[in-house]
This record gives sequence, structure tokens and C-alpha cells, in this order.
Amino acid sequence: MYAIPGPEVWVYSGKKLQNLEQVKRYLEARRMRIVMNPIGVIHSPYKEPKDMPIQGTFKPEVEAFVEVYAKYSDGLKDLEGFSHVIVLYFFHRSEKEQIQGSPFLEDDEHGVFAMRSPHRPNHIGLSVAKICGIYGSKLHFTEVDVLDRTPVLDIKPYVKYFDARENVISGWLDKHFEDGHSPEKTILR
Amino acid sequence: MYAIPGPEVWVYSGKKLQNLEQVKRYLEARRMRIVMNPIGVIHSPYKEPKDMPIQGTFKPEVEAFVEVYAKYSDGLKDLEGFSHVIVLYFFHRSEKEQIQGSPFLEDDEHGVFAMRSPHRPNHIGLSVAKICGIYGSKLHFTEVDVLDRTPVLDIKPYVKYFDARENVISGWLDKHFEDGHSPEKTILR
Repeated sequence: MYAIPGPEVWVYSGKKLQNLEQVKRYLEARRMRIVMNPIGVIHSPYKEPKDMPIQGTFKPEVEAFVEVYAKYSDGLKDLEGFSHVIVLYFFHRSEKEQIQGSPFLEDDEHGVFAMRSPHRPNHIGLSVAKICGIYGSKLHFTEVDVLDRTPVLDIKPYVKYFDARENVISGWLDKHFEDGHSPEKTILR
Repeated sequence: MYAIPGPEVWVYSGKKLQNLEQVKRYLEARRMRIVMNPIGVIHSPYKEPKDMPIQGTFKPEVEAFVEVYAKYSDGLKDLEGFSHVIVLYFFHRSEKEQIQGSPFLEDDEHGVFAMRSPHRPNHIGLSVAKICGIYGSKLHFTEVDVLDRTPVLDIKPYVKYFDARENVISGWLDKHFEDGHSPEKTILR
């Protein structure tokens, strides 16, 4: 696979693909690679993992914003009518993929798909955040647990009819939150 | 950018990168493309969009499963302790990116980041599903709204302390669910 310099033409096994959309279709059909482009970047007070909470609700007052790139900013229309948002981003600081390991909260080992660890295949992060306001191409939010300069892959409205669940059992995490308490360690060191 | 046939060596602007991890790092640093590999595939009774609900809760009894590829299946360890899961996948049937448009439920136009439309940048889909059981590398779930053969990008445990929110306002969607009613159109035709 190579890109001919100049206009964006990608060639796969001799098949010319004219744009990234065609490339994505092709990759998918072969169950191979999927190519994504960030739609924006996060500006956050957390420059390093130190002092950042493991989930934004543990430091709810901290504010950050997504700067959506110009070509995508019309996509924010009517998002201000929602109270919460789901932000999907790329864990750009993770240097590894760890299929089993210990989470921050305990020493027991779990599978990566039973944890919210950044060291996961495809390195996709997900945070539910509270919308403060939208100013042009800037989506301000609180309940932040994302590093500064994190590339954003998608923004979705949090819809209570689709995303809020009752009678949820949260596996190995429940014991850390018994009787309404929070775990002792919720801030990264 | 091209891949030398044989061992996986990718070259970007003369810089040799030995593996996909290095490629990802490089792409991110340049704010360019992020390369992902599916970690599995969905087996669902919905072969076509027709008859599929817009969200799985509208046909809660239907069952599907994620077949996680062998190299990732150890990542499912301890997920069976959770009642719900977040499945992230690639909308492989969407042929377009539409920054504003009308959702299935109404004719008014909204931004793509205020909708759950498949026609979005990066084409990432997100569903909250109910876990039925995990059998080897197969994660069975109900509350299905995903097409058969959809490539899966990630699986995350649904954690009530992180993902369930109260006092949620759901923008343009709220009027369709007033007084606890469901919209008339919840099944794709």
C-alpha cells in the first residue's frame, strides 16, 4: 500500500482508491485496517497524568474543551440542547497494548475489555462529560479525565433513553464503591 | 507512505517504522491518520438495516454476539461480572459523511455530533448492550442494534459510577419520549 505524492490516490494491491472513504471501505472488506482522522483536539488543564482523576466525576469542577477542526464544526449544531456528551478519543500517550493487567484501583488482574485502561487494542478512550457551553467550534465541558492535546475521534450526544441504565452490576469495581463510598485512590500519582 | 512486502515495515517520509504501534504514534504526532484493526466481528440476526431498531432497547429480546479474534480473547477475563457493556464498532455500511442532516426520528436537521447517525466522521458506532454470557471468545448480548458482520473496535465494561447519569437532558430527542412514551418509529424500514 502506498500513496502517490500529490493528489490523494492510494493504491492497494494494484487497485487505485481515490479518497480516504474508498480506502476505509476497502480495508473493512478485507478485515484489515481502518483509517481515522482526528476531528479535533482536547484542551485540558491536565498536562500530565499526575493529578488527573481516573474518572471526571471525582473532580467535577475542572473545565476543559474540545476544539473541533473547522471542517467539522457545523456538526455541533443543536448539541447545546443536551446536558451530557460522550467524547471518544485516542489514548495518544499509551505506548502499549496489554490484554490482561492490573487496573489503577487494585492489584488483581483483569482482561482489558473488563477495564477502562488506556493500554487497549486501538487505544480508544471514552468519557461521559457535562456540557458547559458551545462557543463556535469549542465545546466546553466539566467532569474531565482527559489529557491536554488528546486527539478527538468522535462526539456523541448522551441520550438517557439509550445510554443511562438502571440495575447495573459493575463487576470487580462494585466493591470499591460499596455503600455509596468512593475509592481512596481516584487521582493518578 | 508505503509498506514493503514481507515483514511489516512502513515508511513515512523516509522514516522506517517497524510495527503498527510506531505507525500510530507517528500519525498522531503529525495529527494525521490513526490506523485501527478490528478486534472482532458481530454476529447479529439483522442482515440488513430493515427491521433493526434504532436502539437495542426497542427490541430487547433479540440476541447477538461478538466473536473476539483469538489474539484478543483473553481480554474478556472478568467481563462476565458486569451486567452491561459498551461496544464500539465501525459503521461499515455507511458510504458517506454528513456533517448536518435529518435523523431517523424527524425531519429537522441537526449536527452530526448531536445525533447518533452512522454517517459521521470516522464512522464509529457505540451501543450499550446487556451481557447474556461469555463463552470462550464469544460475548453474547441482548439489546442489539448492530448489523451482522460489523467490525468491532473495542469493548468496555459499562460502569454505573462512570457512565450512568441522572438529571440528563437529551436535547431534540426529549420531545419524542415525553411522558415515558416511545416514538412511533423505532424500527428501520
